[in-house]
Amino acid sequence: MNRKLGLVIDSEFIQKTLKLAKRGYGHVSPNPMVGAIIVKNRRIIGQAYHERFGGEHAEPLAIKNTTESVAGATLYVNLEPCSHQGKQPPCANRIVAAGISRVVIGTADPNPQVNGDGIKFLIEHGIDVTVEVAERKCQHLNRAFFRYVTTGLPWVTLKIAQTIDGRIAAADQGSKWISGEKSRKYAHKLRAGHDAIIAGIGTVLSDDPQLNVRMSEGKDPRRVVLDSKLRIPLEAKVLTDHLTKHTVVATTAAAPTDKIERIQATGAKVWVLPTDNGSVDLAALCEKLGTKGVASVLVEGGSAVFSAFMRQGLVDELAVFVAPKILGAGLFAIQDLGIKSLGKSIKLRRLRSKKMGEDVLLVAEVIREQN
Amino acid sequence: MNRKLGLVIDSEFIQKTLKLAKRGYGHVSPNPMVGAIIVKNRRIIGQAYHERFGGEHAEPLAIKNTTESVAGATLYVNLEPCSHQGKQPPCANRIVAAGISRVVIGTADPNPQVNGDGIKFLIEHGIDVTVEVAERKCQHLNRAFFRYVTTGLPWVTLKIAQTIDGRIAAADQGSKWISGEKSRKYAHKLRAGHDAIIAGIGTVLSDDPQLNVRMSEGKDPRRVVLDSKLRIPLEAKVLTDHLTKHTVVATTAAAPTDKIERIQATGAKVWVLPTDNGSVDLAALCEKLGTKGVASVLVEGGSAVFSAFMRQGLVDELAVFVAPKILGAGLFAIQDLGIKSLGKSIKLRRLRSKKMGEDVLLVAEVIREQN
Repeated sequence: MNRKLGLVIDSEFIQKTLKLAKRGYGHVSPNPMVGAIIVKNRRIIGQAYHERFGGEHAEPLAIKNTTESVAGATLYVNLEPCSHQGKQPPCANRIVAAGISRVVIGTADPNPQVNGDGIKFLIEHGIDVTVEVAERKCQHLNRAFFRYVTTGLPWVTLKIAQTIDGRIAAADQGSKWISGEKSRKYAHKLRAGHDAIIAGIGTVLSDDPQLNVRMSEGKDPRRVVLDSKLRIPLEAKVLTDHLTKHTVVATTAAAPTDKIERIQATGAKVWVLPTDNGSVDLAALCEKLGTKGVASVLVEGGSAVFSAFMRQGLVDELAVFVAPKILGAGLFAIQDLGIKSLGKSIKLRRLRSKKMGEDVLLVAEVIREQN
Repeated sequence: MNRKLGLVIDSEFIQKTLKLAKRGYGHVSPNPMVGAIIVKNRRIIGQAYHERFGGEHAEPLAIKNTTESVAGATLYVNLEPCSHQGKQPPCANRIVAAGISRVVIGTADPNPQVNGDGIKFLIEHGIDVTVEVAERKCQHLNRAFFRYVTTGLPWVTLKIAQTIDGRIAAADQGSKWISGEKSRKYAHKLRAGHDAIIAGIGTVLSDDPQLNVRMSEGKDPRRVVLDSKLRIPLEAKVLTDHLTKHTVVATTAAAPTDKIERIQATGAKVWVLPTDNGSVDLAALCEKLGTKGVASVLVEGGSAVFSAFMRQGLVDELAVFVAPKILGAGLFAIQDLGIKSLGKSIKLRRLRSKKMGEDVLLVAEVIREQN
């Protein structure tokens, strides 16, 4: 086969594995989203994706799903097959045992438990391995997983809804609803795609949000309320609904002990964390979330919370819903960070836009090396 | 011919006329952009567009450009053919005289001198006329022309460059360059597409801009500096370059007479206009620009100028270049307009986005009925 043509075809199949992998969005974290396709004589003879956390991996599932022998076939997979015994037996062994002759891999797995060992194992067992095909797209899909397995810290996304002139609330503090229905629906999809939602006590006091997934498919993330002095009312929805055991109230030593006990009595957890200028130290919070298996966090505001995450250099991504409105006054998402000149601005990359009904969604990643 | 199929084909040809028409962008104002295509037996046998202000209209040019007889052919045109003697003889007569049997029109011409008379003339002379095909797109292309011929006032576009958190300048007032090269290039295309550029004296004092078209094709627009007290230095580029006769300094009765004379000596014009809270009254300025044949205006800032245009309800469109940066402090494009709640926000429509190198351009129109 023409080598260049081969690369094109490989890239197309890897991109198909990404589409499959995405079906696991909101279901597999803190595991990665993985899709696998088995091709023989240029025909797909089997495919599968990693469906839920702890469930069977995509590669052996795809092998099972084939209706003919996989001997001599090529396996496409967006992420390096695992080589270690985790919740599932190692995939690399299964691939070798099945008699697959070639494996095309989107990106290596930076998980210290894999990190090239899967690729090495395949090669050592005589399999023809091609790596780094559509690598950037493959890394992008599992960016939260990659951050998590390499640092132990969750990927942090700020979800902001603002007017075209950059206001997230009117002068009277009103922010319901800046964005339209399609944006709000997509915001629920974002919730389902993250392992935890964080909101400040201000937002809880003013909006009493449910912080669950209603307008989209997917599981409800953990809910974290930042509340340094425990001002949260015991009647708040996050302390009284059927998901209360998923609620964490993150507070500081300034919290009254009796309030801690009353909150714990609802089934919610209270985490007493170090302070940062009197507020909950967000780096400590992120570390603790990481130890609890939270690989990604959606920060829903308000302004003080967004700004604190930015100030501590903890933000990985922004999702900004821009509404076709002008306020000319009101609150901004990001407050003074001590940046005085354009040259010192925090730089983003991969800024892209998506029409969302009447709104536009802007998404960009923070270049963290700069923070 | 199947009627529905006929409509689809008509719509496709009208959209082709729009593409042709756009070639006149920056050259025909205050006349409209018009493209014409002549089709016989489903083959295009001639086409043309309105190339420059005062030049021959698209319809007779298209007739001239055909290599075979137009008798029995269909003429497609995005705007109603004119029926009055202007700088050019009426097109409707030329179409009838040529023996064209059918005319498909994107949108009627709201110009009081046409306004259905062209359509009427064609029908009265036995021509089969189809109107309002891809009407919205046709109206959108010539939105500035439509506003101008119906109100005598120019279409006003605010051109804003801001960070993703809505800042147009850093705390140290620096705003060079918020947006990237591709955005700046496109901004020059916007300049070429408008009849005048407006900038505040603050921008002139801090940046000494040339306010001409450099990074794009097209003619230089008039340059208007808002300068209520005539603080402009006589050395400013807009008063010293080869385009000085295209410069208007808009001022108020507060301007010193001797400075007026010295500015006029450079070749630039000085307009003494009524005041609005001590500044140049922008409604009066727009009226005067209209009487001078200015059908469209690009407002380049700064913040005080943007805000004054918004406050006076004179804005038709926003072109916001969003850069992948976060400042967390600094200046905003639109300042307090006295809007206290989200319900009272100024509503926009047709918000759309376009990738501009590393930036994203957001464009939206102000729903003026609300102002």
